[in-house]
Amino acid sequence: MDKNRCSRMLQVGQVKIEDAFWKGKQKLVREEVIPYQWKALNDQIPDAAPSFCMHNFRAAVRLNNRREEQRENFHPPVYSYRGFERLPEKPGELGDEFYGFVFQDSDFYKWVEAVGYSLIQHPDAELEATADQAIEIVAAAQQPDGYLDTYYILNGQDQIFTNLRDFHELYCLGHLIEGAIAYFQATGKDRLLQVACRYTDYAASKLGEGEGKKRGYPGHEIAEMALLQLYEVTGEPRYLELSRFFINERGRRPYYFDFEHPEDVKPGDDSLRYSYHQAHLPVREQTEAVGHAVRAVYLYSGMAELARVDGDDSLLKACRTLWDSTTGKKMYITGGIGGTHIGEAFSFDYDLPSDTAYAETCASIGLIFFAGRMLQLEADVRYADVMEKALYNGVLSGIALDGKSFFYVNPLSVDPVACHKDERKAHVQPVRQKWFGCACCPPNLARLISSVGRYAYTSTEDTLYIHLYIGSNLKLQTPAGEVTVKVRSNFPYNGKVSIQVGGQGAASGKWTLALRIPGWCKDWKSSGFSVEDARLEKGYLYITREWKPDETLELDFPMEVRLMQANPHVRETEGQLAVTRGPVVYCLEEKDNGSNLHLLALSYDAKTRTEPFSIEGEQFPAILADGWREKQQPDAENGLYCEAAPVEYEPVELKFVPYYTWANRGENEMTVWVHRKTC
Amino acid sequence: MDKNRCSRMLQVGQVKIEDAFWKGKQKLVREEVIPYQWKALNDQIPDAAPSFCMHNFRAAVRLNNRREEQRENFHPPVYSYRGFERLPEKPGELGDEFYGFVFQDSDFYKWVEAVGYSLIQHPDAELEATADQAIEIVAAAQQPDGYLDTYYILNGQDQIFTNLRDFHELYCLGHLIEGAIAYFQATGKDRLLQVACRYTDYAASKLGEGEGKKRGYPGHEIAEMALLQLYEVTGEPRYLELSRFFINERGRRPYYFDFEHPEDVKPGDDSLRYSYHQAHLPVREQTEAVGHAVRAVYLYSGMAELARVDGDDSLLKACRTLWDSTTGKKMYITGGIGGTHIGEAFSFDYDLPSDTAYAETCASIGLIFFAGRMLQLEADVRYADVMEKALYNGVLSGIALDGKSFFYVNPLSVDPVACHKDERKAHVQPVRQKWFGCACCPPNLARLISSVGRYAYTSTEDTLYIHLYIGSNLKLQTPAGEVTVKVRSNFPYNGKVSIQVGGQGAASGKWTLALRIPGWCKDWKSSGFSVEDARLEKGYLYITREWKPDETLELDFPMEVRLMQANPHVRETEGQLAVTRGPVVYCLEEKDNGSNLHLLALSYDAKTRTEPFSIEGEQFPAILADGWREKQQPDAENGLYCEAAPVEYEPVELKFVPYYTWANRGENEMTVWVHRKTC
Repeated sequence: MDKNRCSRMLQVGQVKIEDAFWKGKQKLVREEVIPYQWKALNDQIPDAAPSFCMHNFRAAVRLNNRREEQRENFHPPVYSYRGFERLPEKPGELGDEFYGFVFQDSDFYKWVEAVGYSLIQHPDAELEATADQAIEIVAAAQQPDGYLDTYYILNGQDQIFTNLRDFHELYCLGHLIEGAIAYFQATGKDRLLQVACRYTDYAASKLGEGEGKKRGYPGHEIAEMALLQLYEVTGEPRYLELSRFFINERGRRPYYFDFEHPEDVKPGDDSLRYSYHQAHLPVREQTEAVGHAVRAVYLYSGMAELARVDGDDSLLKACRTLWDSTTGKKMYITGGIGGTHIGEAFSFDYDLPSDTAYAETCASIGLIFFAGRMLQLEADVRYADVMEKALYNGVLSGIALDGKSFFYVNPLSVDPVACHKDERKAHVQPVRQKWFGCACCPPNLARLISSVGRYAYTSTEDTLYIHLYIGSNLKLQTPAGEVTVKVRSNFPYNGKVSIQVGGQGAASGKWTLALRIPGWCKDWKSSGFSVEDARLEKGYLYITREWKPDETLELDFPMEVRLMQANPHVRETEGQLAVTRGPVVYCLEEKDNGSNLHLLALSYDAKTRTEPFSIEGEQFPAILADGWREKQQPDAENGLYCEAAPVEYEPVELKFVPYYTWANRGENEMTVWVHRKTC
Repeated sequence: MDKNRCSRMLQVGQVKIEDAFWKGKQKLVREEVIPYQWKALNDQIPDAAPSFCMHNFRAAVRLNNRREEQRENFHPPVYSYRGFERLPEKPGELGDEFYGFVFQDSDFYKWVEAVGYSLIQHPDAELEATADQAIEIVAAAQQPDGYLDTYYILNGQDQIFTNLRDFHELYCLGHLIEGAIAYFQATGKDRLLQVACRYTDYAASKLGEGEGKKRGYPGHEIAEMALLQLYEVTGEPRYLELSRFFINERGRRPYYFDFEHPEDVKPGDDSLRYSYHQAHLPVREQTEAVGHAVRAVYLYSGMAELARVDGDDSLLKACRTLWDSTTGKKMYITGGIGGTHIGEAFSFDYDLPSDTAYAETCASIGLIFFAGRMLQLEADVRYADVMEKALYNGVLSGIALDGKSFFYVNPLSVDPVACHKDERKAHVQPVRQKWFGCACCPPNLARLISSVGRYAYTSTEDTLYIHLYIGSNLKLQTPAGEVTVKVRSNFPYNGKVSIQVGGQGAASGKWTLALRIPGWCKDWKSSGFSVEDARLEKGYLYITREWKPDETLELDFPMEVRLMQANPHVRETEGQLAVTRGPVVYCLEEKDNGSNLHLLALSYDAKTRTEPFSIEGEQFPAILADGWREKQQPDAENGLYCEAAPVEYEPVELKFVPYYTWANRGENEMTVWVHRKTC
């Protein structure tokens, strides 16, 4: 592999969003999520589980101040608390102790990352001032040696890096880095970036190869990809080295986590204990996506990034294999991943239950990270197709249309009665929740939506790839000089796209636009260029030519309604159909179709049409389909079981709405998959 | 209700089994289960979890002997152990302490009950001597005051009856009573019956109405129905009183279990905590079958028995309602009950998942107890139909055809890959297990199979009801004197039945034979009586006449193959069909039909035929059906999702075998429900 041929994601600041759909979503994040989240970090939401995040930072600052005042007489805390979540004895009465989940620091880092991206698109002095002040608190919580994790600062620093497997120190470090970079790129202020570098330097002095260092790696991945970003921002090779160490060391035997947790080592097959953390095998030997789904795709994203930086073919090969496993055998049609709530994990191949799905919002976000990094390695439309699928379905379903409530779990079929009465579905909520004690998904949504432009493009020296058609303006350097590209589209509901290329002065050289032809579109059209300049490869239309200023290409990807079926290996959806249009997966809701959605049926060639519809102000074409409803026999006469007869159907018009818009009209039944009509 | 019109179950000794099918099953119990179980009770099975049952009795005896020797210097144990299951620190090194589950005494009581029934059908001096010796150990373990539960004897008697909710003292008492009565009726020896009476008298002195007594009732029901049996055997009204107290007190407020467990009382909705034990409401106010399924049907059986003894209309009404809830909304087509493994419990109405079913063998056995007692109250074929369904399907599936291994859980669909890889199916075994640490099902099977004749008949002064057609001989008193009845049949695979009535001397009066017309049979035939003597009511053919010696009635219940469908409220089986013939539910196994059973399909009017087949020597007609197999598309080409097309089927012959015979040919896929063919 020639690493110089790899393309690169753009910086958020290079892409200015000019897209009604995404501007709306970013406005929600700016006006609803970020302010709400800031209150949550400060425990100011009356009905929600407190975060304790900013409390912990402030308590760490007070501890530092006491150290400063008392000097020799200061006695640091000794390690006193081993639980995963700590709550105050009396709610509201907080001492200078650590409360909440062990990973609570990351809540701030994710928030400040979203703030950074938001400020790029939409400057806001007041928000920036709030963030600056908070960053000062975080900076003041940092220890003289650079260490920064409030859990251990407040509970005793003698135990630092002794439980990498469970206690998320390196996960928090990863989020700190990502937040600091975003904020630096947005504002030019490097205060938090310096904090991140100092903590990273501390970590690098304790972990890695070399005498006196622990050969540990993160229990929850993310630092891998974050460190590579830090390397590219700072140019410091030691950050690359640490990332490479984390990736290469994972899963080697003897297992590092066994040194940390000898009490868990038991005879017999032990692979499950490690696969939760993707530490069951060295990463290059891994062939199946296993364990906690978010951790997995965060790791794979780091691996794909390192493959690019190092030009590492063996890593690229592993990434391709893990991509195929993830998306070819373990992904819901919505781009959701994680078939089981036990361990929030991948289930076995083709096990994709609809009603007990986990399909965590964060996992679909991580899948976008993974896809984006695979696209840097090789432009293949299958990566972009999955990225788009996850974005418009499994990710957006995580946030209410008013931006005020969130799904952690994204099932493909919900019967609210079962959610309330069946403990096996206790993880499935029929309506979105305001906030979560373990609040990973809402801030993750905020940072992804605010930076969505990053995933639309990659570039090489002479080629701009367009992976997602998101209305936006960008500038970039080409062999012909700096050019501007304006993309206009009405995705995800209209397939017409125009791309205007502009340039400062004469365009005196050839360069290439590589345009994704979505896998869901068969009969696309294009105009504005001559066929001799174009070639099609792996789902990308490459147009190489000299560009005249203000030339416009037109693309048309007709969005037909498509009825879909799953691979017959998926037992759950045998005999069922799903409805999609363009990148959007649709669903049936009780609100539009009455109760007992399982009694509705479709033929594979059902006639469909669209009609404008809206929910909570979100405009979209609803899909109407000629379908069927099974007639119900009165219970009393037939009891539970009776002799088989042809199913009696009455014709009904089924109304489908985009999956991501479900559960915005109160609690009700929903299903993505609909039974095929039987004969 | 006129309690004198109620019919009564016969004693096991009145019915001599002469039926090839059931003689075979009883032989298995006699030759395989009972000897194996005796070894298990004595921890002599190398690969199985030890029972500790006889150890505990022996340790209690040694404690009693020390008390005897040391007299005033004896210090009884003080309560030292609160766990639900205790294991020795080093396997095999047992002190004089209690080990195993808190309910381990009941293992012996269930064993001795099966031994009793077996001795009636098949005398065996050696087995009887073994049982006699064991009974002496149990008797010697009894305390001077009559108390007998080794858990508390060995852990300190000061805590007796302080945890009725969880620690099964009254459950063990119930099984002691049932075992003692069976053994008494089999052998005429009342040693164990006296032990049972003494323990019951102790319990009656501590529990019930009246000053100084606790108003407690069993956390796990069974004592209710056992006490009523003891009342009828001994004629002692105090046993009736205690049963009546247990039944009437259950669920009254304030909740007794709250006195025992104040630590569990929490504000807010508390119904779930009580419904597990059916203690959420007074029994006459209960309308829905809830909680632990075995406990529930044991309670309902006791209620139905008390309704008969007391002529209590309000209890009869509650029993009918709970019967309808259990069998009309919460029962698998196999007669399995308990849709969820969480709490081994009933799920909500119509929630009957096939692959995660619990459907405990013991729960189907309890359903037979309940049905048998409802039949005493009112002869209605729907009770007998369910009893027969549970017996030939959900119960017999619990035991391997060679009698050497057992299912606790009886799923309706199994993919062994899922059982091994999916923790949500950890409770589902794809092959039967040799023994269980919590060994309720194997001994329960042994006692049911050994006493199956009890459930075939009930009688009033002038009527003999035949509920199950099991080849057998019986004697009974009628208004015409003592008569003999010989039933000959080849159920469950052949519907021809002959019934020969004989009499000692002249039959000088009219009496009635009431013959069940199975609900699964439409076109039955009968001969050997004149129509004027017959009437049909609630599925029973009543023939009232004077009978001449050696008259023979012939009945013919043709067993057609019937394809069945579930009530459309059952989401799980929407679009699916099951195959039955007579009382037997059939299933598909991978062994006969290849893997991926979910790709097989049937039309509702599929042509079927039978052919003789056998598994492990069990002879039966296999059912062959003209079915379909969905053609699989190669993975590589189609990925996980593709555009819908008509399902491509190839015609295949499907081979169905009786559900209870599944998993006797190694681990493989199985399903009861088959997809309907789609169009």
